[in-house]
Amino acid sequence: MNAIDELTEQFKKFPGIGNRQAKRFVYFLLTQNGNTLSKLSKLVSELKKETSQCSSCFRFFESKNESTSCDICSDPNIDKTKLMIVEKDVDFENIKKMGVYPGKFFILGGTIPILEREPTKKIRAKQLVDIIEKNKNELEEIILALSINPEGENTLQYVKKILELLAEKYDIKITTLGRGLSTGTELEYSDSDTFQNALKNRG
Amino acid sequence: MNAIDELTEQFKKFPGIGNRQAKRFVYFLLTQNGNTLSKLSKLVSELKKETSQCSSCFRFFESKNESTSCDICSDPNIDKTKLMIVEKDVDFENIKKMGVYPGKFFILGGTIPILEREPTKKIRAKQLVDIIEKNKNELEEIILALSINPEGENTLQYVKKILELLAEKYDIKITTLGRGLSTGTELEYSDSDTFQNALKNRG
Amino acid sequence: MNAIDELTEQFKKFPGIGNRQAKRFVYFLLTQNGNTLSKLSKLVSELKKETSQCSSCFRFFESKNESTSCDICSDPNIDKTKLMIVEKDVDFENIKKMGVYPGKFFILGGTIPILEREPTKKIRAKQLVDIIEKNKNELEEIILALSINPEGENTLQYVKKILELLAEKYDIKITTLGRGLSTGTELEYSDSDTFQNALKNRG
Amino acid sequence: MNAIDELTEQFKKFPGIGNRQAKRFVYFLLTQNGNTLSKLSKLVSELKKETSQCSSCFRFFESKNESTSCDICSDPNIDKTKLMIVEKDVDFENIKKMGVYPGKFFILGGTIPILEREPTKKIRAKQLVDIIEKNKNELEEIILALSINPEGENTLQYVKKILELLAEKYDIKITTLGRGLSTGTELEYSDSDTFQNALKNRG
Repeated sequence: MNAIDELTEQFKKFPGIGNRQAKRFVYFLLTQNGNTLSKLSKLVSELKKETSQCSSCFRFFESKNESTSCDICSDPNIDKTKLMIVEKDVDFENIKKMGVYPGKFFILGGTIPILEREPTKKIRAKQLVDIIEKNKNELEEIILALSINPEGENTLQYVKKILELLAEKYDIKITTLGRGLSTGTELEYSDSDTFQNALKNRG
Repeated sequence: MNAIDELTEQFKKFPGIGNRQAKRFVYFLLTQNGNTLSKLSKLVSELKKETSQCSSCFRFFESKNESTSCDICSDPNIDKTKLMIVEKDVDFENIKKMGVYPGKFFILGGTIPILEREPTKKIRAKQLVDIIEKNKNELEEIILALSINPEGENTLQYVKKILELLAEKYDIKITTLGRGLSTGTELEYSDSDTFQNALKNRG
Repeated sequence: MNAIDELTEQFKKFPGIGNRQAKRFVYFLLTQNGNTLSKLSKLVSELKKETSQCSSCFRFFESKNESTSCDICSDPNIDKTKLMIVEKDVDFENIKKMGVYPGKFFILGGTIPILEREPTKKIRAKQLVDIIEKNKNELEEIILALSINPEGENTLQYVKKILELLAEKYDIKITTLGRGLSTGTELEYSDSDTFQNALKNRG
Repeated sequence: MNAIDELTEQFKKFPGIGNRQAKRFVYFLLTQNGNTLSKLSKLVSELKKETSQCSSCFRFFESKNESTSCDICSDPNIDKTKLMIVEKDVDFENIKKMGVYPGKFFILGGTIPILEREPTKKIRAKQLVDIIEKNKNELEEIILALSINPEGENTLQYVKKILELLAEKYDIKITTLGRGLSTGTELEYSDSDTFQNALKNRG
């Protein structure tokens, strides 16, 4: 396999990229000058050196000094009574930039497919329990913020179950994001689940 | 203008139908036998004779006898303490078939565009007030069930405003459907409004 | 079944119309005044009285007088040496309004699905043969103008086969529309069939 | 700017990639192990060392030895009487894998936007002329194979014009790919240009 094909294979592993677009990426790179390629190459090879995974929320962040905590987890003004559990880094980013939630985060690192035999391998279950144990004195609420689709629901039920006893023991409330009509919902087409939740949560 | 073009013009007035599809409808009818055309013609011409508009909820229904109330409004088992206000007949139909709301309905008959100068002409405002006056002794809650888009929100604010005093006077609660994550919402892409509502309504 | 449901059923038979849109049509009609409904009803019931099927090309046309030939087939300036065979009335309309083909038309009235057992029932095969027999002295070319999809290709092969002997007997040329790149074709994505035709027909 | 953001910026330059997908790429890489990142980094940095641009057709190819000609241009069995001009490497790849064209290729390297002031900077105009001069004794036909869209048409006219005198001088025929119906064309929706070409090229 030649260099063009090998690099195409690598790009095909990128999320959402098929053979055709992978090849377009390679031809695009071929038209770039040497400096651009060197820079990209360097950024890729040093990505992990420049980046740490926060020992507290498990998101990736730029590691400037020796800190093992990201800027949010080490922010003294953060509301330590709340911990929001999200699936992945981009979920965290989307929520963070809204600026409406002042508490801590935890990145699960995945979701659990329906009928998965080894659910603990799909998410950071053990790490989540450790974090809760460590913060048990301050924590008052755990907010499960997962997408509303079958895998998200399955993950939510699973996480709820593994946290139940722990939450009771330390008197921590477990909540889930409210459900109802969201931007764009038209009542002519709304599904029964959504409407029922909206009716229940009316006010 | 010939018959094909005239009928095409009529079909072009149908919601969501452009010139091309209107013409396809006409050519489709041309391939149907005389009986089918007669039947369709008769159903159209007698539609309004066979149908009444309920004097209470203003939806269209089949008028069997002399009744001016539809089967839902005249159902003795209906929960008369609740009135749900929806925009149009198909919204009512979608909600009704879910079987989760036991109360009464009112069809507004439209929405109010932003900056509309004559909002009362766009919806059944006067009729709504009349219905509430008439049912003031039993009514305990008015549920505004409008789509989550700019026109829906505008209509909701307008209706809320015109009902405010009336509701206070007769001690009727005005509620809106709960907002939050709906089926299919992914947190990576969710908008700020929806997330804020979901956060506020968590539980 | 009530009037609303009955009319909904009728509209569901229209090409491309599902249950939901059929119902929207009915509710739309319920909001129209009596005159509009009467007019629509009358146009539907009289559609076939006002319209004839041309005895020569089999398209539908407005029958003003007793003529059994449409305005195109009875136009003395038409190029009688050419006959273009198309699938349906809307194909004819699209081609006619381009103003680039001066000859006669014949509407097949359908296409033949792959593996169809009774192909002659799907198209006006017998009528086509009759028309060719009738015009054998003037006809020099039959142009098969069918869509480039599996059913169109199947129909094209079938029609070619049934006309072969006839065409040879009367010295009529059978042609098909040229194939190659069409508006919007991008060579990065073009399929092999299209490219091969384009290469063969280069010039 | 941190490493995550810097790499995101680089991926945003890739064709068809926006901010959101660029970020997904980075988070995807963060979950990969060090070996994978090293491999990708190395492939990117060595891409140009491993790859040459053919001095004859200007496409990129793997340079095994000191050859400056790609495997197709140096293939002794290639039909040297034909030269097909295409816009870009992926167009060449799509056509090559069909296996229906035995001649040589030339990659223009771009298209010329309508009203472009410096067209020669957008395509390999000078190199094309050089190649033709160099092969004038064998060349019999130049096939312009450009996409059927405004920029493609503009480029085609421009290239035709600059080759005109040269072609006449050396008695080389200039052809363009045939136009007509392509796979998927439906006559109900076909545009006038496509139909006219199909009618002209019927046979």
